[in-house]
Amino acid sequence: MAYSPSVQSLMEALRCLPGVGPKSAQRMTFALLQHDRDGARRLARALETAAETVGECRRCRTLTEEDLCQLCASDRRDPAVLCVVENPSDVQALEDATDYAGQYFVLKGRLSPLDGIGPGELGLEALEARFTDGEVREIILAVSPTVEGEATAQYIASMAAEADIRISRIAHGVPLGGDLDYVDAGTLSHAFAGRARYG
Amino acid sequence: MAYSPSVQSLMEALRCLPGVGPKSAQRMTFALLQHDRDGARRLARALETAAETVGECRRCRTLTEEDLCQLCASDRRDPAVLCVVENPSDVQALEDATDYAGQYFVLKGRLSPLDGIGPGELGLEALEARFTDGEVREIILAVSPTVEGEATAQYIASMAAEADIRISRIAHGVPLGGDLDYVDAGTLSHAFAGRARYG
Repeated sequence: MAYSPSVQSLMEALRCLPGVGPKSAQRMTFALLQHDRDGARRLARALETAAETVGECRRCRTLTEEDLCQLCASDRRDPAVLCVVENPSDVQALEDATDYAGQYFVLKGRLSPLDGIGPGELGLEALEARFTDGEVREIILAVSPTVEGEATAQYIASMAAEADIRISRIAHGVPLGGDLDYVDAGTLSHAFAGRARYG
Repeated sequence: MAYSPSVQSLMEALRCLPGVGPKSAQRMTFALLQHDRDGARRLARALETAAETVGECRRCRTLTEEDLCQLCASDRRDPAVLCVVENPSDVQALEDATDYAGQYFVLKGRLSPLDGIGPGELGLEALEARFTDGEVREIILAVSPTVEGEATAQYIASMAAEADIRISRIAHGVPLGGDLDYVDAGTLSHAFAGRARYG
């Protein structure tokens, strides 16, 4: 051990970032201390502020430091259409890629009873409350096509059926520009079964 | 833009880390805020402390928050042997790999007049002062075999010659387990020219 305590503890603290192992942590530590102390101070403040202030939106459960997130507070988003996603980052991905003008609901995970994630953890009661208050008329499911995602989708679909709300799910199939040779068999059989009328 | 200001500014601040682009910054932000707030707070404190307290060792110029680093302060390291390296991380690499028991001198870079890095920036006056005070009897150069590293090595070698100090340089050649087929021509010709007596 040749590092001083402050250097060592910065190196260890950086390991909390996903994808950062001992070697990257060392590289980051030296880069910050040798060339970018201002960046290090700025990052420290941003971490502190975000860790203390960011909570979840009362309505859609996305990460925000306000009571209502920008999308829920906006009067230009149609409250009758609700897109259900797994993570806050999915909201951004859909916002970037589509011109969707409805609102979102963030599950923050998917049903996985073995890991202790049930309907309560996903805020499905809150979602159900929004179904029954009569404002929502359409649900778009954008959960991932994994086993847990399927279970989540089924669960929400039965909730929507009870409340008599139209529900759809984003298409799963061969990605644009994808070569059939390189697509896994599950995706291909799904895409084949889900073929749509053309021309 | 669907992120709240604190989330957005954390995402931007993370970009100061080397190797972190917009996508990794987003992933890190959500991982910290959703699953590891304690880690985020710990990292904020470590960054703050390190940015404020870490300076350089008075003797060897490595990063430390003390006046003298652990290696320079230790009475078990031979002050008559001095290993010259480019970066603080090189000290750790040599400590891990060898049983070297002398001291170090960290240049923090290499001679590169075009980038404004001259002998002054590398602390070569401080190194020269240590040559002339009579304590150092041997220098081991562990600078990298690049053009700038060569220039730095030459410069230090001439300083050592003036002070009548023995100087050696770590060997450059084919790495252990390396296949000649995959070694670049420069390394191979260097290894060939620098062949040592065997058996």
